[in-house]
Order: sequence, then C-alpha cells, then structure tokens
Amino acid sequence: MKFELHPQLAADTFLIGDLPLCRVLLMNDARFPWVILVPRRKDISEIYDLSMQDQQLLWQESALVAEKLMKLTEADKMNIAALGNVVPQLHVHHVARFKTDAVWPKPIWGQGVAVPYSDSDKQQMLRNLSDMFRGFLVSGQSLNV
Amino acid sequence: MKFELHPQLAADTFLIGDLPLCRVLLMNDARFPWVILVPRRKDISEIYDLSMQDQQLLWQESALVAEKLMKLTEADKMNIAALGNVVPQLHVHHVARFKTDAVWPKPIWGQGVAVPYSDSDKQQMLRNLSDMFRGFLVSGQSLNV
Repeated sequence: MKFELHPQLAADTFLIGDLPLCRVLLMNDARFPWVILVPRRKDISEIYDLSMQDQQLLWQESALVAEKLMKLTEADKMNIAALGNVVPQLHVHHVARFKTDAVWPKPIWGQGVAVPYSDSDKQQMLRNLSDMFRGFLVSGQSLNV
Repeated sequence: MKFELHPQLAADTFLIGDLPLCRVLLMNDARFPWVILVPRRKDISEIYDLSMQDQQLLWQESALVAEKLMKLTEADKMNIAALGNVVPQLHVHHVARFKTDAVWPKPIWGQGVAVPYSDSDKQQMLRNLSDMFRGFLVSGQSLNV
C-alpha cells in the first residue's frame, strides 16, 4: 500500500518536492514562511513509530529545511513542531518567525486566519524554495505552478 | 564556561534529572503532563546549531521521553515543539495530550493559564517520571522533593 498525503494537508499546501524520506510542502499562508515535512510512510502518527533509520532521516531533513529557510528568509527564529491533534498523519511544521510578524512572540497555531498567497507571490516563493533545495530533492514540483 | 539553565525555565519547572545530553524538566502546569528537554550546551538557540552527534542524541532522548510519557499517561497524542520565541535557550517541549484536556485539539501554548501542581501531585508525578527514566538518567533529582 502506497503513502498518500492526508487530504487536509493536500488542501492547505503547495508541493515543493520530495526529500529522501519526506514530502516537502509550502503552507498556503502568506503571513509566515512555513514548510511542512511529511515522512512518506503509511499509518505513522508519532515520531517514535518510525524506524530508527527513518527518525535519523527525518531530523536530518528537518535540520536542512530549518537552516535553509532561516537563511532564505533572514528570520529571527525557527519554530519546529510535530502536533497532529487534528491531522493524525505525522507532519513536522517549520515556521520562520520574525519579531515583526503578526503574532510574535506567540506560537502561530490557532492565531488569526491564514492569508492565502497571491498567484505571483506563490510562484516566487515556490521558485525560491525549489532553488534552495536544489540538489537535495529526489523529485521536484513543476515550475509551471 | 558551564551550561546554565535559563532562569525562566528554572522558575517554571521542576528538575527530573539529566539524560546524556539533556536536562529533563517537568513543567509546573498540572493541566498537561509536560516534559521539557534542554541540551546542556551553551549558547544554542536552533537545533541545527548543535553538532550532528548532539542532534542525534537530542532526537534519541526526545523519542525516549515521548514514548515513555505516552505509555505512562495513556495519552491520545504527543505534541513536540521547539519554539523559543520568548526563551532563546534551545528547549524541546513534550506534551501529552488528551481528547478530554482543557484546550484539545488546539496547541497548548498561549491557551489559558498554567495550573501549578499541588505538593502531593508534584511529588507523585516526579516519582512516576523518575521511575519511568530509571536506567537512562545520568543524574537524578532527589526524591525528597
């Protein structure tokens, strides 16, 4: 049986591509540069349910995303979280935070309402992220987004 | 120069002990079984600032805490997060969540007000957690809490 992305995650995000373990998604919320990693494994809710090897891959990919997203955005802080109270499929949030952003210093979840990207901002952001992960992605999104 | 726990973390928590990398703390909020891991390294804010070896240790210790805390509490979901917008010293939250808890399914940060443990509940919780980590802690809290 194949990995399938949870429909809620599919509805809320744009595809950037696949790292060796994780699907890489951009959250459709222009308030925050927000990348979600989803291990391409079936029926996993908790990190400790992954094999030790997959846990190592997850955190290597998480560190890659965190460091590159911080450099790209010149943010003040990276927020990383695995919650999953609503969408049980294991997914790890990476949110670049700014002292000037809409809800600083609060965590973003449950604060305000998502602001969808404009088409041009979405294309620019996906292009930047694709460039950022060039050489790491095992499959990428089409640039004709 | 020695690792020192940030004074805000010291004020908000009780000491459980030290794992090989991390100090293990119980958050003084009886609403949620809530354990915080703090790598005993100086001047680290982001996970990717740790050495690769320390990152591996952090996530091994995180998985240990998550799995044992879930078993101890029979919770519905583990929430794991590294935020640090207010306290910059790297620390990783592990919160056992229940479908019946005060703020489910929302993340707990910024929701309501912490409820301090009673003395007897605090002693019971610290005893349970010390038992839970027996054999893993390199130094433990005194049981005369």
